[in-house]
Amino acid sequence: MSSTVEELREIYANNQKKFLEDYFRFLSFQSVSTDPAFTPDVLACAEWLTDYIQSIGFTVEKWPTSGYPVIFAQNLEAGPDQPTLLIYNHYDVQPVDPVNEWSTPPFQPSIRNGEVYARGAEDNKGQCMYVLHALKVLKERKGRFPINIKLCIEGEEESGSRGLAETLTDPSRQEKLKADYLAIVDMGLRDKDTPAVTLGVRGITALEISVQGSKTDLHSGSHGGIVYNPLRALVQMLSRLWKENGEVAVPGFYDDVVELSPQEKDLVALDFDSEKYQAMFGALPTGGERAFSALERAWIRPTIEINGIGGGYSGPGMKTVIPAKASVKISCRLVPNQDPDVIGPLVAQFLKEQAPEGIQVVVPFSRGGGKAVRANPNSPVVKAFAQAYEELFHKPCERIFEGGSIPIATQLTEVCGGDVILLGFGLPDDQIHAPNEHFGIDRLEKGFIVMTRALELLEN
Amino acid sequence: MSSTVEELREIYANNQKKFLEDYFRFLSFQSVSTDPAFTPDVLACAEWLTDYIQSIGFTVEKWPTSGYPVIFAQNLEAGPDQPTLLIYNHYDVQPVDPVNEWSTPPFQPSIRNGEVYARGAEDNKGQCMYVLHALKVLKERKGRFPINIKLCIEGEEESGSRGLAETLTDPSRQEKLKADYLAIVDMGLRDKDTPAVTLGVRGITALEISVQGSKTDLHSGSHGGIVYNPLRALVQMLSRLWKENGEVAVPGFYDDVVELSPQEKDLVALDFDSEKYQAMFGALPTGGERAFSALERAWIRPTIEINGIGGGYSGPGMKTVIPAKASVKISCRLVPNQDPDVIGPLVAQFLKEQAPEGIQVVVPFSRGGGKAVRANPNSPVVKAFAQAYEELFHKPCERIFEGGSIPIATQLTEVCGGDVILLGFGLPDDQIHAPNEHFGIDRLEKGFIVMTRALELLEN
Repeated sequence: MSSTVEELREIYANNQKKFLEDYFRFLSFQSVSTDPAFTPDVLACAEWLTDYIQSIGFTVEKWPTSGYPVIFAQNLEAGPDQPTLLIYNHYDVQPVDPVNEWSTPPFQPSIRNGEVYARGAEDNKGQCMYVLHALKVLKERKGRFPINIKLCIEGEEESGSRGLAETLTDPSRQEKLKADYLAIVDMGLRDKDTPAVTLGVRGITALEISVQGSKTDLHSGSHGGIVYNPLRALVQMLSRLWKENGEVAVPGFYDDVVELSPQEKDLVALDFDSEKYQAMFGALPTGGERAFSALERAWIRPTIEINGIGGGYSGPGMKTVIPAKASVKISCRLVPNQDPDVIGPLVAQFLKEQAPEGIQVVVPFSRGGGKAVRANPNSPVVKAFAQAYEELFHKPCERIFEGGSIPIATQLTEVCGGDVILLGFGLPDDQIHAPNEHFGIDRLEKGFIVMTRALELLEN
Repeated sequence: MSSTVEELREIYANNQKKFLEDYFRFLSFQSVSTDPAFTPDVLACAEWLTDYIQSIGFTVEKWPTSGYPVIFAQNLEAGPDQPTLLIYNHYDVQPVDPVNEWSTPPFQPSIRNGEVYARGAEDNKGQCMYVLHALKVLKERKGRFPINIKLCIEGEEESGSRGLAETLTDPSRQEKLKADYLAIVDMGLRDKDTPAVTLGVRGITALEISVQGSKTDLHSGSHGGIVYNPLRALVQMLSRLWKENGEVAVPGFYDDVVELSPQEKDLVALDFDSEKYQAMFGALPTGGERAFSALERAWIRPTIEINGIGGGYSGPGMKTVIPAKASVKISCRLVPNQDPDVIGPLVAQFLKEQAPEGIQVVVPFSRGGGKAVRANPNSPVVKAFAQAYEELFHKPCERIFEGGSIPIATQLTEVCGGDVILLGFGLPDDQIHAPNEHFGIDRLEKGFIVMTRALELLEN
C-alpha cells in the first residue's frame, strides 16, 4: 500500500489549482500573534483552519487558552496495531515591519518566479499546508490513514507559545497528545537540492529592559554635560555583553552548556560556504565566538542578540534631545541543558549591574522562552523521513541543526513521550521574519510527497 | 522720555486680551522646520508674521532662501544720532514627538495655572511676541521708536539656519543687517525671581551615522552567531566615545578649546543646586566630565550626546530579528574656538574606525552647525538690558551662560558688526524641545517691560 514519487507528482498536478487556493486563503489572514491589534484576524484564521481540518476527516477540538486557541485533531482509524504520529505546526505569523520594504502587500499573496510572497508563506503556513494536503490525499485515496495521526497546531509560536505551554500542563490534554512519534514541521534544508532532517533546535529566552534618566525629555544643549544620557548608559551597558573574542561576558552564561559528543558531531553537516553566504545575504560571517566555526556558532553554541533599540528621536532631520528613557529588546539562543529561566534573569541582572549612577533600570519583560531540543538520530521516525527525502531527491539525506527556536518543542516532546524529528522545506533565503517572505510552489509539492511517503513508510 | 515699570504694567494690562490673541494665533501655526511635511504651515506662519510686523510700523522684506524666508524689518526714524539695535528671533519650532505625551494638542494653545502650553510657547514664539508688543506700544505712545530698530526673524533655527546662513553671505543683505548692537532674544533666567543676561552660548555640530551588516533583516535564530549584528556594532562603537571619567575619547576633540579666564569666571554665576535640579527634572547631575562642576560642564565645556537610536524592532512584543541596518543621531556642543566643520568629521571618522569587520558605516548627514558665541560683558547693550532687568526685579542682574546653541549667532554677530547680548525669559522647566512646552503669561508682561525699558535706556 505504498505510492511512488511519480504517482504522487501526478496527483499533486491534478490538485494544484485547488491546493493553491487553500494556501492563498490561509495566507490572507493577518494572524500576527505578537500584537493585540490583530486578535480578530488570528481568531478568524483558527476558525478557518478548524473547518479545513474537519473536512479532511479529522475530529477537531479547539482548545481555549489564555491567548489563542490550540487546534487539536485526531484520526485513530488505523487502529492499535499501527503507530501514532503527532504533527506540530503553527498558524500565527511574525509582524510585518518595516512594511514599506515589502514589494507586494504581506497579506495579499503574490507569485513571482514560482515563489509565493506573503507573511507566513514559509513560516509556518506553507509548511502546515503541505502536511494537510498530504493527509487529505492519503484519506481520499485509501479511505483511511496508514497510521494514527494527531495534529497540534498552535497560534502563539511567534509570541512565546504561552497558550500551548498552559495546555501541556493539563493532564487530560497531556493524555490526548501522547504518541509514538512527534514531527515538528517548521524546519528547512541548507539548499534546495540537498535533502536534510533536523536533529535539534536552539532554545530561547527573551527580555526587554528600559533605562530612565529623568522625568521628561531634556534639551541636549541646556542639560548636555549635566545629566547622564540614558542612551549613553544603554550603549555602554550593552557593549559589555560581549568580550573582545566574541564570547558572551555575562558570568555563568556558559556554565550549563553540554557540548556535542565527537560521534554526534561526525554525523552533522558542518561545512560552511562563506562566499555563498555572502552572495545570499550580503553579510560576512564575522559575528559570534572566534573559537568556533560559523555553523557551530549558529547551531550548537548559545548567543545574545540585540533585536531592537528605541530611544530619542529617529525621524527625519535632527532633534537635539536627551530622552528621558530608552529601551532594548534582547534574545538569547540556548543549547541543551541551558535553562531559559536561569539565563534570562542572569543577563538582566548583569545589565542592571552595569548601570551608571543616575540611571534607573527596569526589566518590564522577561520570559522563560523554551529549552533546546535534540533528536535521537536512530529512531524509526528519523529513518522514515530520511528515506522519504532520499526517494524524492535521489541523494543522501543530511543531518543538520537549526539555530532558531521552537520554544515549545521540549515541553511538547516530553508530553508526547515519543521520538521527535524536526523537518521541513524552508530555505535560508526565504526571508522569514523579514520583509518579502516567500516559499516555492515546487516546495509545496515536495513537502506533500515527503509527508505522504513518510507516513506510508511508518505503517507496520 | 522714559517710562516707569508701573506705567508699563498698566499699559500691558489694558492690552493683555489683544496681546494673548496675537500670541495664540502665532502658536497655532505648525511651523516645524525640521520636517518637510510642514512646509505649508511654516510658510503661512511667515506670511502672518510679516503682516503683523508691518502693522506695527516697520518696512518689512521677506528674503527668500533655499529653505524658509528670513523676515527682515527696519524702522530708522530715530535718525543717525541714535544707535541702531538689531533684534533676532525665529518663527520655526521643534517637532512634537512623542505627541501622545502632550496633555493638550501642541498647536492648540491652552492655559493652565497661568502658563500657556503649546509647541513654541517659549522657544521662540513667546519671546518673539513680547519683543513685538514692546515695539508696538513704543511706537503707539511716542509716534516713533527711541532708537533705530532692525528685526531679523528666521524660520530655520531648529533645523540649522541654512537659509539665514546663505543670506549672511550676500553683500547687500550684510549691509542691511549692520547695527551697533545685536540682541538675540532666545534665552532665559536660572529661576523666575533672578534677573539674568546671557554672555554666551555653545556651538553645535550634528551628525547621523548608519551601520549595515546584511542586505535584509535576518532571523536571529538562524543567523545569530554567524553575522555581526549591526546593533551590537553600533553600541560598541558608540560606547567608545567616552572615557571612564566622562571625557570625550575622540582624539583631538579638545585641541582647540579656549578656557574661560579667571576674571571672566568670577563674573559668572556658577553655583548649582543639585537637590533643586533633581526635584525639577527627576535627574541626577552625574553626566559629563568628572573634573568639572555641573554648570561648567553645561556652559563652558564641549559635549557629545546621542539624540536618538533606531534599529530593529521596538514595537509591542518581540521580533527575533537581526536588523540589516541601524542608525544614530549625535550632536556635539562646542565652546569658543572649536570649529563645527572640524569636530563633526572628527567624530564621524572616529566612529568609522571603531566599526568591526563585516559592518559598513555610512554618514548620510553631517552638518557644520554653528560656533559658540561670547559677549563683551562691558558693552552699552549689556549694561542697558541689565539695568532694565534690575528695575523690574529690584535685585542684581546675574551674568550667566547657556548650554544650548543658536547655530547662526556667531555669523550674525560678525555681519552685524556690533556688540552682542543674549537674553530672554525662558525658565529651565519650560519643557522646550519636549512634550508640554509652556511659557508664563507673567513672563510675556515682564519681557514686554524689559524690552521697552532697555530700548529707552539705549536712546542717547
